[in-house]
Amino acid sequence: MSSKPTLAVVGATGAVGGVMLGILSTRHDVYGEIRLVASPRSAGRKLTVRGEQVEVLALAPEVFDGVDIAMFDVPDEVSAEWAPVAAARGAVVVDNSGAFRLDPDVPLVVPEVNAEQTRNRPRGIIANPNCTTLSMIVALGALHRMYGLRELVVASYQAASGAGQAGIDTLYDQLERVGGQRELGNRAGDVRAAVGEFGPFPAPLALNVVPWAGSLKDGGWSSEELKVRDESRKILGLPDLKVSATCVRVPVVTTHSLAVHAVFDGRVDQREAQAVLAGSPGVVLLDDPEAHEYPTPADVVGTDPTWVGRVRRSLDDPKALDMFLCGDNLRKGAALNTAQIAELVAAEFTGR
Amino acid sequence: MSSKPTLAVVGATGAVGGVMLGILSTRHDVYGEIRLVASPRSAGRKLTVRGEQVEVLALAPEVFDGVDIAMFDVPDEVSAEWAPVAAARGAVVVDNSGAFRLDPDVPLVVPEVNAEQTRNRPRGIIANPNCTTLSMIVALGALHRMYGLRELVVASYQAASGAGQAGIDTLYDQLERVGGQRELGNRAGDVRAAVGEFGPFPAPLALNVVPWAGSLKDGGWSSEELKVRDESRKILGLPDLKVSATCVRVPVVTTHSLAVHAVFDGRVDQREAQAVLAGSPGVVLLDDPEAHEYPTPADVVGTDPTWVGRVRRSLDDPKALDMFLCGDNLRKGAALNTAQIAELVAAEFTGR
Repeated sequence: MSSKPTLAVVGATGAVGGVMLGILSTRHDVYGEIRLVASPRSAGRKLTVRGEQVEVLALAPEVFDGVDIAMFDVPDEVSAEWAPVAAARGAVVVDNSGAFRLDPDVPLVVPEVNAEQTRNRPRGIIANPNCTTLSMIVALGALHRMYGLRELVVASYQAASGAGQAGIDTLYDQLERVGGQRELGNRAGDVRAAVGEFGPFPAPLALNVVPWAGSLKDGGWSSEELKVRDESRKILGLPDLKVSATCVRVPVVTTHSLAVHAVFDGRVDQREAQAVLAGSPGVVLLDDPEAHEYPTPADVVGTDPTWVGRVRRSLDDPKALDMFLCGDNLRKGAALNTAQIAELVAAEFTGR
Repeated sequence: MSSKPTLAVVGATGAVGGVMLGILSTRHDVYGEIRLVASPRSAGRKLTVRGEQVEVLALAPEVFDGVDIAMFDVPDEVSAEWAPVAAARGAVVVDNSGAFRLDPDVPLVVPEVNAEQTRNRPRGIIANPNCTTLSMIVALGALHRMYGLRELVVASYQAASGAGQAGIDTLYDQLERVGGQRELGNRAGDVRAAVGEFGPFPAPLALNVVPWAGSLKDGGWSSEELKVRDESRKILGLPDLKVSATCVRVPVVTTHSLAVHAVFDGRVDQREAQAVLAGSPGVVLLDDPEAHEYPTPADVVGTDPTWVGRVRRSLDDPKALDMFLCGDNLRKGAALNTAQIAELVAAEFTGR
């Protein structure tokens, strides 16, 4: 195998799909043909990738004929049905849904942390983690290698685009309605009455924060919170890692932030931990509060790395670090990590 | 002593002062005279309290002559200078600055938690806690009485008004500028360029979250984070309580929210903890995710209680609870708690 592999991008017309086409357009030499695939109602649209107009094909078994690698960014139930179809036709599937992430026969890969798992794919499917987990796990993987991770307490500040294009549109719509209304936010219910449609969110997002993402699971946990726990454990290879997450949506368009309290096996040191993070691939340390330097979504959006700041050793536990992390949930949190996994697979084809 | 005490409100023209005048206007029978005091540049303005126009006096020693209780909501350095002046003239001072909170001779009071400390005031000063601590401590006090608190990990979602009227104005200004700009938030730096002045914040607040509040202390901690730790310990009477806080500003006008991971001495139970919270004075339990019921700032602002939802027992620690809390930082977080303390003192005068 030495020719460039053929790639299919399934879900090309979504919010993540759009970012993916941009990323693929910066990597001209990796793939041969690139096929764009979406639901029948989007078929026939033309999208630009690598500077060329490409017509979107309707999802059907035969679109996978001759495909070597298929990226999926579609709802769970669509992946559950179609990823095995693509795999059966010979494609290696890199799937960004939740359908296969906890399947023991499907590796869950973050290249900076567990690239070696990419080849361990008995079903021909590799899963891409949830965007919230991805926004922190590269940095935590680096600290785990240094200190040995025992426990995580996570609070998220999740962007609207984590709920897809509908989430983005809803936030802009709401901001347009509240902009210029200078009395909003002082009385209960005023914002609720002013913002218009809630879109994919259960409450107003403009001028508000909403402690909910995903669906309800046992014990009052949200699916998003369980993903942070279960996926962190699988990626890090720590099945007994203690994890408590509270996932909260904030009025930010794109880039998830997380406040993380991480407890390790042994004593930690602030300066050493900062040096470990600064020296880790895929991580940028931005940690100088005196100079107002810490990551914020407005400064991180559109970039590839996980940004870390506010690194502090806990005052009451010499084995614990507190920190604040930001990662673009559409790039590293979705499209970029999928592209990185696909490139690891592509390297098998071209023998690089 | 049986006549109604004379009250002075120092800092009457600020964001908290305005809320205070509203609260005082609902309590016609507590005080005799109410004097309004502010900096010389605000003196002469007329403000409405209890339905009457009252002229604001310039801060000076003689404004405290004949005053029984003086509420202060002014910057730390102003309180540090003037609270002892008021106390020396015979007033009991209830101070909402950070100047005296950790003074061992000044009680730090939350009436639902430690009302008995109000009478233990050798300096004639009683301190009101920081708004972030106040937004959670009534609920945590109730859980502490039931289970015995050992450790807190806190991530905050703090409103603009925590930075005063300048914070409110800055957020409205920024929202007016970004409203209708539907491409903002997709590229690093765009929001920074679009929002105009940052006001009291170190970075844009509209379409952003900012992991900073207060001033820089040792080890990279912010003063706000240390207040959460030190004040929680003092109010609860737990000098060894383990506390790690990460304080983050969000684009909400008023009402602080907190994600709290609380570890107790013994096993906890989700339903029992919910019942404890639901039965505690000053706390409202709003915890039915299936019905989209959890507290959000937009629904809590303007109300008195601490609202708690998302109560979950940690999956990996039977002694830990995770929850999400909201409290109006200008009411219970500042003016209301100050008013409650002052009323405990007023009851001494009227013998009620």
